[in-house]
Amino acid sequence: MSEKSRPKFLSVLAGEKQSRPPVWFMRQAGRYLPEYRALRATAPNFIAFCLDPEKAAEATLQPMRRLPFDAAIVFADILLIPRAIGQEVWFEAGEGPKLGALPSIERMRDLAPAAGEALKNVGETLSRVRAALDPEKALIGFAGAPWTVATYMIEGGSSDRSGARTYAYEHPETLDALIDVLVEATVDYLAMQAASGAQVLKLFESWAEGLSEDLFERLVIRPHTAIVKGLRARGVTTPVIGFPRGAAALVDRYAVVTPVDAVALDTTAPAALGQRVQAAKPIQGALDPLLLRAGGPALDERVETLLAQWGEGPYIFNLGHGILPDTPIAHVERVLKRVTGKDPTPNFTPKMDY
Amino acid sequence: MSEKSRPKFLSVLAGEKQSRPPVWFMRQAGRYLPEYRALRATAPNFIAFCLDPEKAAEATLQPMRRLPFDAAIVFADILLIPRAIGQEVWFEAGEGPKLGALPSIERMRDLAPAAGEALKNVGETLSRVRAALDPEKALIGFAGAPWTVATYMIEGGSSDRSGARTYAYEHPETLDALIDVLVEATVDYLAMQAASGAQVLKLFESWAEGLSEDLFERLVIRPHTAIVKGLRARGVTTPVIGFPRGAAALVDRYAVVTPVDAVALDTTAPAALGQRVQAAKPIQGALDPLLLRAGGPALDERVETLLAQWGEGPYIFNLGHGILPDTPIAHVERVLKRVTGKDPTPNFTPKMDY
Repeated sequence: MSEKSRPKFLSVLAGEKQSRPPVWFMRQAGRYLPEYRALRATAPNFIAFCLDPEKAAEATLQPMRRLPFDAAIVFADILLIPRAIGQEVWFEAGEGPKLGALPSIERMRDLAPAAGEALKNVGETLSRVRAALDPEKALIGFAGAPWTVATYMIEGGSSDRSGARTYAYEHPETLDALIDVLVEATVDYLAMQAASGAQVLKLFESWAEGLSEDLFERLVIRPHTAIVKGLRARGVTTPVIGFPRGAAALVDRYAVVTPVDAVALDTTAPAALGQRVQAAKPIQGALDPLLLRAGGPALDERVETLLAQWGEGPYIFNLGHGILPDTPIAHVERVLKRVTGKDPTPNFTPKMDY
Repeated sequence: MSEKSRPKFLSVLAGEKQSRPPVWFMRQAGRYLPEYRALRATAPNFIAFCLDPEKAAEATLQPMRRLPFDAAIVFADILLIPRAIGQEVWFEAGEGPKLGALPSIERMRDLAPAAGEALKNVGETLSRVRAALDPEKALIGFAGAPWTVATYMIEGGSSDRSGARTYAYEHPETLDALIDVLVEATVDYLAMQAASGAQVLKLFESWAEGLSEDLFERLVIRPHTAIVKGLRARGVTTPVIGFPRGAAALVDRYAVVTPVDAVALDTTAPAALGQRVQAAKPIQGALDPLLLRAGGPALDERVETLLAQWGEGPYIFNLGHGILPDTPIAHVERVLKRVTGKDPTPNFTPKMDY
C-alpha cells in the first residue's frame, strides 16, 4: 500500500520512517467528551454498554469526529474476559468494578477456548467502526493482560494488588493455572478481534508495577510471549503493542525477549530507555495525563521534549496512562495540533441527543 | 577500627568486603512485635510517642534484643519535619496521617534553619539508643526526602500523589520554594541526628514512583544532592543511604549523579540494576515484604536468589519496603538465621508491662 492509503499508524508499526509520529490517546473515547457522557447516560449498566455494538461503536467514533487522532480504539473493558470465562463482573457507581467468586480452574478452562465467541459483540463493534472509519485511520483492538486481569479476579475488584501478589507466593500452582487459562482466552478473544477488523492489538498490563524480577518473568514476560505466539500460530499477523505499565527497569528485558511488535511506555520512562527500545522496536507514550489536564507552559515544554527525544525513531505519540475525565478538550486539541499539524474539525457540534 | 569493633554495617558502607551482608529491616521496630504493640498502647498520640525519647528509644531497641539485626533505626516518623516547620500533623486511628493547612513559604523558611532544634527529642532518643546498643551494631537516623514529605504537606495526608504532581505542574515556583525549604530543614535535622549518635543517615523518598524524568530530576535528584552537599558543607561526614522507592528505570542515573553513599533498592529492582549500581556504590534491599509475610519455599528461594545475585558486591540485606504488621516473627527469624548464621536470642521473653 502507498503511504496515502495505509494508515500512518500501521506504517510506523511496520518500521517505516514517517514525517511525524502518529498519535492517539488512551481513553480517548471517554468522559472528558460531553457527547460520551450523554451517550453513557443512556446505559446505566457499564458492561451492557460495552457489549452493545451500536453504542460501543458510537463511543469509539466520537473522538474521531472532532479530533485529528490517527487511530480509534474499540470501546470495551479489560474485565470482559473474566465474564467470558464464568466470573460475574459488575460496576457500582463511584466504586469501580466488582467481581463475584472466582470460578474453579476447570470451569474457566472449559470456557476459555470460546472467549471470542462469548464476546462476539466486541467483534461486531469493531466491524461497525471499521466500516465507518476513514481508511487512513487505524483501528485498535485490545485486551487486559493475564496478570492484570487476574489481580481483579483474585481480589474481587480494584485493589493495591497486594492480595494477588500474596496469592502468587502462596498458591503458585493455582495462579499459574489461572494465568494459562487467561492466555488461552486472550488469544481467542484477540484473534476474534483481528478477524473482525482490528488492525492493531494492544495488551494492557496495567499492573506490571511492584513485581520483583522473578514474578515479572513468570506473570508478565511468559504470558505475553505465549499470547503473541498463540496468535501467530493461529495465523493472526496483526501487530501487537505490549504495555507493561510500571515495569520501568524491566522494560528493557521485556522489549527484547517478548515477541510484541511495539512497546508502550508509561509516564516514568526516561528518554534513554525509550531510545534503547527504539533500537529494536517502535515505542508509544508517554505524556503524563496529569500534565495534559494541567496544561500551560509545562505541557508545551514536555510535548517538545517527547518529540525531540523520541521523534527520530519509530514513535507513536500517546499518554503514559489514560486521559483523565476532567481534562479540558482544548488541551487535547492543542497537543494534537502540535503533533499532527491539524486543527480540530471546524464548527464541530457534538451529537448530544442519544 | 578493626572489623571486630566497628559495626559490619559501617564497613560495608566504607566499601570493605565482608564475609556476609549485614542486615536490617525497614520498620523492624513496629507492629509485628507484640512488645511494640504493648508499648504503643501506652501512648495514644503517635506524634507524642515519636517525640518521647524514653518510649521511642525503647521501641528502637525492642527488635535488637530478640533478633540478630546488624543495625537499629531510630523510631520516628517522616512527618516530624512538617511539624517542625509549622504545619500541624496528627494521626487518626485507622486513617493515617492528617495535616493542617500549608503554612506560608515565608513562615516555613523562618523555621527551617531550626528544624534540628525543634526535633531535638529525636536526638535524645538517638543518644539513649547509642548508649544502650551493642558497639558492634550500627545506629541509623533518617528523614523523609523533600518530595515525599511535600506530597503529604500539599495533599493534607496520604494520597495517590496526583494532587501533588499536579501542583508541581501548575505551581512550579511555589513547589520549588517548598522543596528548598525542606532541603534546608532536612539538612539541619539530619546534622542534629548525626551529632546525637546516628552513624548512618537514610533519606526515604517513599514516593519517587510515577515521576517523569524531568520531574524526577527536579524533585528527587536535585534535592537529594543538595541535602548531601549541605551535610558535607557543615562537616557532617556520616554516610547517607538514598532510597528512591519506585524510581526503577531512573535509579541508574540517581546512583551516578547524586552524592549519596549507598542506594536502597525497592522490591522491583532487577538483579542487573543492582549489579550496575554496585559497581559504584553499596546497595541495600530488596526482599518483598509480602513474601516475607507469606513465607514458605518461595521465601527461601528468593533469599537465596538475592544473596547469590548481590552478595558478592557491597550489599546490605533488607526488604524493598517496610515489614508488614501481620508478618510472623518466625519468618523474620528464619531469614535472619540464613543471612547472619545467628539464632534469635535464646529463651527471649519480651517485656509486655509498659
